[in-house]
Amino acid sequence: MAYDIELIKNKLRSLLDEERYLHSIGVMETAIHLAKKYDANVEKAQVAGLLHDCAKGYSDEELLKFAQRYEIEVDEVLKHAPFLLHGPVGAYLAEEIFGIKDPEVKRAIALHTTGDVNMTLLDEIIFLADYIEPNRDFKGVEELRRLAKENLDLALLKSFDSTICYVIERGLLLYEKTVKARNYILLKLGSGEK
Amino acid sequence: MAYDIELIKNKLRSLLDEERYLHSIGVMETAIHLAKKYDANVEKAQVAGLLHDCAKGYSDEELLKFAQRYEIEVDEVLKHAPFLLHGPVGAYLAEEIFGIKDPEVKRAIALHTTGDVNMTLLDEIIFLADYIEPNRDFKGVEELRRLAKENLDLALLKSFDSTICYVIERGLLLYEKTVKARNYILLKLGSGEK
Repeated sequence: MAYDIELIKNKLRSLLDEERYLHSIGVMETAIHLAKKYDANVEKAQVAGLLHDCAKGYSDEELLKFAQRYEIEVDEVLKHAPFLLHGPVGAYLAEEIFGIKDPEVKRAIALHTTGDVNMTLLDEIIFLADYIEPNRDFKGVEELRRLAKENLDLALLKSFDSTICYVIERGLLLYEKTVKARNYILLKLGSGEK
Repeated sequence: MAYDIELIKNKLRSLLDEERYLHSIGVMETAIHLAKKYDANVEKAQVAGLLHDCAKGYSDEELLKFAQRYEIEVDEVLKHAPFLLHGPVGAYLAEEIFGIKDPEVKRAIALHTTGDVNMTLLDEIIFLADYIEPNRDFKGVEELRRLAKENLDLALLKSFDSTICYVIERGLLLYEKTVKARNYILLKLGSGEK
């Protein structure tokens, strides 16, 4: 189906602050670019990229309430790091607020922060677009942008590595699903053995 | 019970090369030291430290065969990184070859490489002794030795962090149990939240 992107943008703008809205536009544009490059569905990439952070404006308390309402399982890590819920909660809000029913789009929104095993091409594109969109500025982002043009899986692996190192350095809880996602992609790439 | 340490040493020497044997003596001595400092059972720490690597001399193929024999579950990561099995296999060999029946000692041997949630004081001591025994030489080991004298849990957390970063840097598979162990200790220390 064709999405009314202008209508979605207008609604989204009321949910996010300016910086987060501009980031969403950046992710949308990067996702479109990657979808064209890797033969994914461009419309799905566009709307998933635009809406990936639609739940980012809510507080930890609100995200935990949404999780309860949508019956999202909240494990020990999510309980202590509720901001990780903005992915799965966002998938439900994409339907409730924006009328997005496509399970592929919703899944890509749900997984964009943590990743998971068996990521689809669309899941990978949204995860990576979130990492490398033009407004991002961190050590190594240029290398990731270069890799994303050459090898999506390898760029994804390096993004997971970067996320895990960031979490370790800052003494935060490490989400097991991200570790599983990294192992999965490592095996998919045919490496990881000692 | 009192263990016949000299008899155990003689048997162990036949299973390990010289370097690994000396490492085992180093872990035993460090474990005794930590057990005295933190009021753990010194005899258990001594024998667990001495025997922690008793399965280290076996090849990946042999470890996988032992795992089958002892009905140790081999998940995707262990299948690709069978050396991680030397802990759990070692716990069984400690009983079969060395007559060690004490479940606390066997558990500390089983967990010494990967860690786990709910680690006992003995588990923590053996894990850490393996990391900081006098023959170890890596960046940060002096800091860990200092920390081990002050705060066992914090030293353990830093050891997990170091293990995880090592695994990431080398592009190896990351064992989920180690991540769970790190999260557990982080929460025990009262931190880890964003």
